[in-house]
Amino acid sequence: MTIIDVIEHKKNKKKLTEEEINFMITGMLDGSILDYQISSLLMAIVLNGMDEEETFYLTKAMLNSGDKIDLSKINGIKVDKHSTGGVGDKVTLVLGPLLASLGPKMAKMSGRGLGHTGGTIDKLEAIDGFKVELSQDDFIKEVNDIGLAIISQTGNIVPADKKLYALRDVTGTVDSIPLIASSIMSKKLASGADMIFIDVKVGNGALMKDIDSARSLAKMMINIGRRFDKTVICLLTNMNEPLGNAVGNALEVQEAIETLKGYGPADLIELVINMAALVLNKTEDMPLEDAKTLCLKKLQSGDAYHKFEEMVTYQKGDLTNLKISKRIFSVKSAKEGYINHIDTFGLGEIARLIGAGRLAKTDVIDPSVGFTLTHKIGDYVKVNDELIKIYLNEKDMKIETILNCFDIGMEKVDKEPLIYEIIS
Amino acid sequence: MTIIDVIEHKKNKKKLTEEEINFMITGMLDGSILDYQISSLLMAIVLNGMDEEETFYLTKAMLNSGDKIDLSKINGIKVDKHSTGGVGDKVTLVLGPLLASLGPKMAKMSGRGLGHTGGTIDKLEAIDGFKVELSQDDFIKEVNDIGLAIISQTGNIVPADKKLYALRDVTGTVDSIPLIASSIMSKKLASGADMIFIDVKVGNGALMKDIDSARSLAKMMINIGRRFDKTVICLLTNMNEPLGNAVGNALEVQEAIETLKGYGPADLIELVINMAALVLNKTEDMPLEDAKTLCLKKLQSGDAYHKFEEMVTYQKGDLTNLKISKRIFSVKSAKEGYINHIDTFGLGEIARLIGAGRLAKTDVIDPSVGFTLTHKIGDYVKVNDELIKIYLNEKDMKIETILNCFDIGMEKVDKEPLIYEIIS
Repeated sequence: MTIIDVIEHKKNKKKLTEEEINFMITGMLDGSILDYQISSLLMAIVLNGMDEEETFYLTKAMLNSGDKIDLSKINGIKVDKHSTGGVGDKVTLVLGPLLASLGPKMAKMSGRGLGHTGGTIDKLEAIDGFKVELSQDDFIKEVNDIGLAIISQTGNIVPADKKLYALRDVTGTVDSIPLIASSIMSKKLASGADMIFIDVKVGNGALMKDIDSARSLAKMMINIGRRFDKTVICLLTNMNEPLGNAVGNALEVQEAIETLKGYGPADLIELVINMAALVLNKTEDMPLEDAKTLCLKKLQSGDAYHKFEEMVTYQKGDLTNLKISKRIFSVKSAKEGYINHIDTFGLGEIARLIGAGRLAKTDVIDPSVGFTLTHKIGDYVKVNDELIKIYLNEKDMKIETILNCFDIGMEKVDKEPLIYEIIS
Repeated sequence: MTIIDVIEHKKNKKKLTEEEINFMITGMLDGSILDYQISSLLMAIVLNGMDEEETFYLTKAMLNSGDKIDLSKINGIKVDKHSTGGVGDKVTLVLGPLLASLGPKMAKMSGRGLGHTGGTIDKLEAIDGFKVELSQDDFIKEVNDIGLAIISQTGNIVPADKKLYALRDVTGTVDSIPLIASSIMSKKLASGADMIFIDVKVGNGALMKDIDSARSLAKMMINIGRRFDKTVICLLTNMNEPLGNAVGNALEVQEAIETLKGYGPADLIELVINMAALVLNKTEDMPLEDAKTLCLKKLQSGDAYHKFEEMVTYQKGDLTNLKISKRIFSVKSAKEGYINHIDTFGLGEIARLIGAGRLAKTDVIDPSVGFTLTHKIGDYVKVNDELIKIYLNEKDMKIETILNCFDIGMEKVDKEPLIYEIIS
């Protein structure tokens, strides 16, 4: 077998065998197959697809390329969660403490983000002193002690995905359902949780632009999970506007704290409550509506926030000193009418350009910058009403660029739901 | 513009602009675009195609990437010829001298071959002392003096094609009509001839397996030629068996000499006569049948061979000592019946494996090895009749491997024509 045979097969729309997929991953990692051969194969996969079985083999080959985390020393249900990425997505920061306050545990390893804002790890690092690197033993001890820990990936987890993702990122081969599914699932499976939530974002600020492709991705991940005997629950959620109001690392931590204390933005609360309630429903057979009520109570009582504080203390963070830029500009509407559309990708780009995110791994994030939306889709604004507050530090941004992200019209467009579908 | 934009456009079946194609070629050559990005784009081109205009822009960008040969100091009609590659193809060695004996001139730069046997240059090097490297001035002087010269590519001709072809070869992206058309045409246009023959081989021993794709390739090349004001004539010819009987470098030179003397194999004579007659027909309005008669006369009279001798002498070759291996094995038929099918690709592989061709640029060719077919498609053979004589040197070959290339049956299958179509 040569890699050219494998490329030719996929180019000619043949189904790849497990042997061919293993050959590709092994050769990629040992250097016998070269990057330009992998990228040619990746483009053939993007254009000619892979079925569920091929995607399962790819997931398995990637999973087996590195270490697997053993969470068996943690008692009880271990929940993991992943988002395909959206603007203002701070769900993990709220869901983890909420679940811990309810019983299920979250032993989460997160990544740094490439994109509009940082990943969960970057957000946590906006907290002074917060330690994201823990030994495996300390990680497990923390989860057993307080029900929760969020650390950056340790060890050699799915090296094949690291390599493959880096290549996809620079070769126009990101948007492939089988490649996305195997990338997410190999990492989630390596992380050892019992129940995996995947928040598939859909809309103009997400990788998946339409419900149909989001649903295909969700179904593929659920079926792959099943082949590994894991429960995977997918939520298809709206990313046609940022989630919550805050975008930027310290700003999102602040909004997560407000939400954990019971007074966060409605959409963020709705999403987190639904996810946590699903866990209770699946693991304890609690009726969904009862579970939602209980979750809301845990936010309002301060129990969820208490868990967050415990985690921050455990990981040496100091919440008294969250650095948010003082250079604040209020951007005001030039038009009157309903906000009918928000260019969420555009806003994400703005966040990145002012320093909240990174394009290259080596870029340094400025945790203090970002923005908060004063109004969202469906709101009625008058001329000079504030649309957005922007927190700048070293970099600037033209007001028109920001205003261009908002479509305001006199006719009100129906607002889409936050949660489109829950699939499991 | 970034290369990822260009890749995304082709991935999404958009037409690439001239700017995008120039950006790709320039970036590839200056190193700002990396091999794995080019190979991803190549696969997108293979799968989503390029139309005639895109292919024209690619040809132009490649042509402009290097030097162009100026043949204006050569008087009269300059003819160039290219073959898409087949087993036993020694047409250039016969056509060049034949044309020179008729008037039109062939100032040909050839390459070394990657594949089953050597390229024309490798074949000429089977002649003791034959110099394939000439200065530009000496090259032009030779053509003006004797009407003919065949040398290896000098200078920096179409560096973009060299780079692109090397990458296509190892990334499963060879079989694309626009990529093949632009590769051939950029080199032919850079070589400066007035009239370009392209022999598009079709069949199990050729890159093009069916007439339809061969015809598409031919039409694309003719139309690109037209955009550059060049006459391109394509012949679609049969490569379901080797051309002539001899395969291997010195053996093919020997067969070319026999053909130039008027007693070569019928198919080789037919093809060469047709091509040369077309030149006379196009340039001097000579009726085709008259032209064919004249061409045949030039072979039988020894005039064509005389031109070959002149070229060999001019380029310091010595024809008295053509090294052909003395280790000859006669492979005999195990069956009685008609030869209905020859696995031409399989025979080509055998030629390469015994040393007549190379897979990597650094492989060394053994000019003395190869084989001669004693029988071809349509012939009736008895058990123990010789099918093929194989000339070995250092490497051996199993008899079954050779026998497996012949399908022999009691029912005779109609033989296909040698020349399927002539398109111009």
